Amino acid sequence: MLYIVGLGLGNERDITLNGLDAVHKCHRVYIEAYTSLLSFGISSDGLSKLEKVYGKAITVADREMVEEKADGILADASELDVAFLVVGDPFGATTHTDLVVRAKKMGIEVKVIHNASVMNAIGICGLQLYRYGETVSIPFFTDTWRPDSFYEKIKRNIDMGLHTLCLLDIQVKEPDLELLCRGKKCYLPPRYMTINTAIRQLLEIVQNHGDSVYTPESKCVGAARLGSDDQMVIAGSMKQLLEFDFGEPLHCLIIPGKTHHIEDEMLDFYSLR
Amino acid sequence: MLYIVGLGLGNERDITLNGLDAVHKCHRVYIEAYTSLLSFGISSDGLSKLEKVYGKAITVADREMVEEKADGILADASELDVAFLVVGDPFGATTHTDLVVRAKKMGIEVKVIHNASVMNAIGICGLQLYRYGETVSIPFFTDTWRPDSFYEKIKRNIDMGLHTLCLLDIQVKEPDLELLCRGKKCYLPPRYMTINTAIRQLLEIVQNHGDSVYTPESKCVGAARLGSDDQMVIAGSMKQLLEFDFGEPLHCLIIPGKTHHIEDEMLDFYSLR
Repeated sequence: MLYIVGLGLGNERDITLNGLDAVHKCHRVYIEAYTSLLSFGISSDGLSKLEKVYGKAITVADREMVEEKADGILADASELDVAFLVVGDPFGATTHTDLVVRAKKMGIEVKVIHNASVMNAIGICGLQLYRYGETVSIPFFTDTWRPDSFYEKIKRNIDMGLHTLCLLDIQVKEPDLELLCRGKKCYLPPRYMTINTAIRQLLEIVQNHGDSVYTPESKCVGAARLGSDDQMVIAGSMKQLLEFDFGEPLHCLIIPGKTHHIEDEMLDFYSLR
Repeated sequence: MLYIVGLGLGNERDITLNGLDAVHKCHRVYIEAYTSLLSFGISSDGLSKLEKVYGKAITVADREMVEEKADGILADASELDVAFLVVGDPFGATTHTDLVVRAKKMGIEVKVIHNASVMNAIGICGLQLYRYGETVSIPFFTDTWRPDSFYEKIKRNIDMGLHTLCLLDIQVKEPDLELLCRGKKCYLPPRYMTINTAIRQLLEIVQNHGDSVYTPESKCVGAARLGSDDQMVIAGSMKQLLEFDFGEPLHCLIIPGKTHHIEDEMLDFYSLR
């Protein structure tokens, strides 16, 4: 059996009792390292708060390992129990559909243990989840690559009065192209987009389009480290949030559509004065 | 402190370790009874599997109690710790924004402990969460009341190639109007809409509009008891699912928009042959 266990968002104690039961049964335990593991105490030497709480040795699996060595992860999983741990929910912002498909094709039973994900935890800001339109991802602009497909989606959501969750770029284990050209496989340090950068890019795009779908005066909500003890949820104009220091990653940004009375009341609690 | 603790979807062991820590600290523990408590072993005499696992007496709070007697629930919560337990996530399909607003106005600190909700657990069917449009709720039709505002939303989502999550009506503690007229406050037995009823209503509506946004041949996905050990996820044409017995509540229905290759592969695993 392959158990895909969501760990939730905050720390090592956000696992569910069912999740912990599954981990205890497993012969091998992997954890995906695509997204931020900061709050889970995963350090480069592999020691972790997780291993202490879960009572198991855990192998960190980066994207390369999962994509290229999935057979190793799945080996024997038709007879033995193997766990694959995932920050958030297994099918939240980062999805693990490919691993599930591969396992099922090998005849391995898969059991998913759900948990909170940024996709539902953003509900805490008070904007109703069922009033969100399509989620967008905002990638880091480079000098030569400034894609803006997210802009049309935000525009569409706003036109329909719907809220937009903007997921912000995470670059973990990106190859260093300069060194790669010289034949060395090196990686750039991880980068996590801040709310400030996201707003800067959003304002650049809307200006390029000569539109006023949103402006520096538009109210939005920044959320940092959702689900952690030190999470921050701050509502304010784009101009205000552009200057606000949200601290450590992960960040995300919500652009409200049409709000209801009760949504406004909640946003008020988070508003910068 | 008011702790609002998400219990997840399946059973009493879907609480997180952080959630359990919070419950253990609390002087009073309530559980919301708006949605289905079936799998959580809440029976009419108040005994429950929950109380055994959590080691606390739990008061069941129906909508009436939360709306009319919120002050009782919140009394002392600025000095003592009080827990309000919620099936799924505190801000998932059923939201508790009103309780949070009321507590904050009383100067009570609120801490939310997130968990899985139907809003993210549907990811298990393989359709990517970030490709969903606005969520719709489908209410029970009566002879005289057949609202169809959900139809335009589904149409819009399909036009944009987005998936639609349909939440199906739950009627818990609905007053019996016939008896109420005779001066007695009685309640109808709880009703949970099945996937079959939802599809029947959906097909009626599209026919009334003379549209072909979807047809009896359109593929959709029915999910019952998401997150439970006996959950069911079945993909098939509306016509096929109309006849399929999904068993006990809760049910929900997903109408796919444009699907990608990996999404199709996942749906294949769930398809009726």
